[in-house]
Formats: sequence, structure tokens, C-alpha cells
Amino acid sequence: MPKYKCVLAYDGTEFAGYQVQPEKRTIQSEFEAVLAQMHKGTMIKVTASGRTDSGVHAKGQVIHFDSPLTFPTENWVKAFSALLPNDIVVLKVDIVPDDFHARFHTTGKEYRYIIDRSKLRDPFKRNYAYHFPYSLDELKMKEAASHLIGTHDFTSFCSAKTEVVDKVRTIDEIDFEENGCYLVFRFVGEGFLYNMVRILVGTLLDVGSGKIDPQDIIGILNQKDRSFAGKTAPAQGLYLWKVFYK
Amino acid sequence: MPKYKCVLAYDGTEFAGYQVQPEKRTIQSEFEAVLAQMHKGTMIKVTASGRTDSGVHAKGQVIHFDSPLTFPTENWVKAFSALLPNDIVVLKVDIVPDDFHARFHTTGKEYRYIIDRSKLRDPFKRNYAYHFPYSLDELKMKEAASHLIGTHDFTSFCSAKTEVVDKVRTIDEIDFEENGCYLVFRFVGEGFLYNMVRILVGTLLDVGSGKIDPQDIIGILNQKDRSFAGKTAPAQGLYLWKVFYK
Repeated sequence: MPKYKCVLAYDGTEFAGYQVQPEKRTIQSEFEAVLAQMHKGTMIKVTASGRTDSGVHAKGQVIHFDSPLTFPTENWVKAFSALLPNDIVVLKVDIVPDDFHARFHTTGKEYRYIIDRSKLRDPFKRNYAYHFPYSLDELKMKEAASHLIGTHDFTSFCSAKTEVVDKVRTIDEIDFEENGCYLVFRFVGEGFLYNMVRILVGTLLDVGSGKIDPQDIIGILNQKDRSFAGKTAPAQGLYLWKVFYK
Repeated sequence: MPKYKCVLAYDGTEFAGYQVQPEKRTIQSEFEAVLAQMHKGTMIKVTASGRTDSGVHAKGQVIHFDSPLTFPTENWVKAFSALLPNDIVVLKVDIVPDDFHARFHTTGKEYRYIIDRSKLRDPFKRNYAYHFPYSLDELKMKEAASHLIGTHDFTSFCSAKTEVVDKVRTIDEIDFEENGCYLVFRFVGEGFLYNMVRILVGTLLDVGSGKIDPQDIIGILNQKDRSFAGKTAPAQGLYLWKVFYK
């Protein structure tokens, strides 16, 4: 039975996140409903690289599933495009080796976070960027980012609700780029904890607006306590941009 | 009592159009609710340059109202930004002469219509463009447009539901421009009938895809019958872009 890998994009606005939850509209449940439809009612389980929260978007989420169906991958793309709701799209389908696993085989992920710095909030961007019209000292933010890059215990930068025990993670890259009125943060690392990117952004914005000194980042990491870092930036600015595999 | 003119932008997705309707969320009712709040419960009537339909967006709708409040125009902008829901924003407020009228004094309007020509539909654009991945002959569309420019009876290009008797209108400009995967139609004229821009777009797309010959436009105009023109293109691609005054 072939194993399929799909790259998908979704607008997270109208979803209660990626993972199946009773009575809620989720990406996984919509996707599995379409697969069941394609397989005459047989439930096909889907495994993703990881979850995304309510309101969080994806430009390159990766999932896998096994299916007895063997039509060409371009026909899978067309079928998904026709059957999935218009806030999810499958960009690419590949046949992968039997032992491929969308979650266990990731070697890294890239997240982006979009800040809208226009003076007036933009009604067309309300679900796609975080409106933050205040001035930011980018040099200070760069310095703070340099303290976050590398391998650290990120307990201070993940939701207190996390069940994961080992909170040591490695961040390979943090950078940000101005694009018109937008400031786009890029985070690349082998893996991220629950809410980690949003707390990193919230803290970097606190540094940029002078509430936290760049040097303080070292102390915040050492505290290993969520209450020392900045606020969790809102979901609508966050995009799971790319998932890396060997 | 000063008269105020406001330029506003709104994402039409979650509105049942501009105009007040019982039990429906409309731009006018949200705006008037905020004005009532600012005026301690007194109802302030708002007059727009014209209505927009459910799902139709505005980048430059114009409204006027009279108010006894006299704070500086930049404070009006800030107050509106704070009080209006996040899918409406007031871009500009000006004090205008007593006899200004947002509807009767317009000298023209510009509408834009955005077509998304990417092969795969984009979940992030589902409410902001019309996905039309088929090939289009732009030369034929330009020829068809040339027959529509000028003063004509546009009965064939307006909703049969229109109550207006005189259906003669003047279109000054129709052009379209490629912008990445988007094709943006621009329509400028002194005034447009109900659904007119969307029917013009639907008909131009029929010309571009070879279903209607450019020359046939002349005959369609002469029929003065809605059933001869193309389909009404969907609301989500349409933007009231600018309203002109002397």
C-alpha cells in the first residue's frame, strides 16, 4: 500500500487548530473527512509534522497517510483541490518510502511571523498579521536574537501548559526583514515548543520597544520560568512556513 | 453643526453589504452604532456614496454625517480606529461645506476587480479575489472593452432587479493589468448600475475564454436584456476603490 506525503497550505482563521477535537472544525478533521469520501467511507488516518494552534496559518505543513489508491500524484492534487474546503489546499503530493514519518523524520522547521507596522490597522490584514504600530529598535532586537540562537533550555519561552519534559531546543536562525509596512520574522530550528515562536516574538517586540534590555535575554533563559519572558504574540501573525526532511 | 466626510476601507467578507438591514451585520449599522456611542446614544445618520453588496470590499468608500462634536479630524480617525470593529477602518476625516453630499456630489467612481489566475486556488485569497485559472485572450478582452467604453444603455449589464429606470451610463476607462498571478480590472465611470461591474467582468471573462466574440458586445448592448450578457462574477473579487468629487 503506497504511502503519500502532502504539502499543504491553510488559512487558520476559521479552524480550531490542526488537531482533531470533538465538535470543532480542525484541519485534520476536514482532511480526514475528504480522505474518507475518496475511500468510500473508510477512515484513513493522517499524521502531520506537528500541530498548529487556532488561528495559526500554514504555507507548508506536511502530512502523510497510507492509501490503497494508486492514481498519479497530480490527480491527488486535483482531487484534493476539488473536495477540500477553500481554506485548505494541497500544494504537492509525493509517494514516499514505507518508513517515512511526517513527524518523526523532520530535521527542522521554519516559522514566519508577520507584523503590520502601518499607523492605521488594515482591515484586510486583521487575520494575517499582528498590527504593531509602535517604534522598534531593530539593532536591539538583533542583539537579543543573537542570545536566543543556539542550544538552550527554552522553558521560559514555552507555554506553562506544555507536557514535554525536555525543553532544550536548538534555534539555527532568527532574522527579520522589512517588506513595505511589514516586518517579517523568520525562525529556523530543529523543533519548537508549544507557543515558543509566539513568545519569542512577544519578547523580541518588548526588546524592540525598550521594555526589556537585549542583555536581559540571557537572564530570562536562565530563570527557566515562563513568567519572565514577554507576552505571547497573537496567533494570526504566525505561519508554519516550511518543514525540512533529510 | 460641522459636516464631516470620511474615507473608509472595509473587508466585506463578514458583512451583509453596506446598507442597514434588519437583523444583519452591515457596514452602515456598525458605523452608526459607533457614532451613537460617541454621541451618548444620539442616532447620527450616515450617508454613503452608494451601497456595496454582501462580500464586496472597499478601499475608498466615502460617507458624510453631521455632528455637534468639534474635536480635530485626526482625533476622529483615532476614535474610529479604537471603536470600529477590525474589518472597518476610517482612513481620513475632513470637515466639508454644509451642502456637501457623499452621494449626490460624486463625479465618478473607480472599481477594481481582482482575478487570481494561479493554477491552484490560494486559501489566503479566497475572500479577496476570484480564482479563474483558465487561459484568457487579453487582446480579445481589450477589443470587447473598447465597445463598452463610452455612453451606452447598460440594461444588459445590470441586475434585472434594478429599480432605476434610466440605465444609460458612461464608462470612461476599462483596463486590466497583470500583477504576478493576479489580473486586476479597473473600471472608471460617472456611475454604475446594480451588479454592473460584476456582470462586465463576467462578460469580459467569457470573451477572454472564447465563449463570446468581442464584436458580439455591440449586439449584447443593443438587446437591452440581462440574459444576453455573461454571468455575474462573484462578490469577493470586487473593490470600491475610489470615489471622485469636484
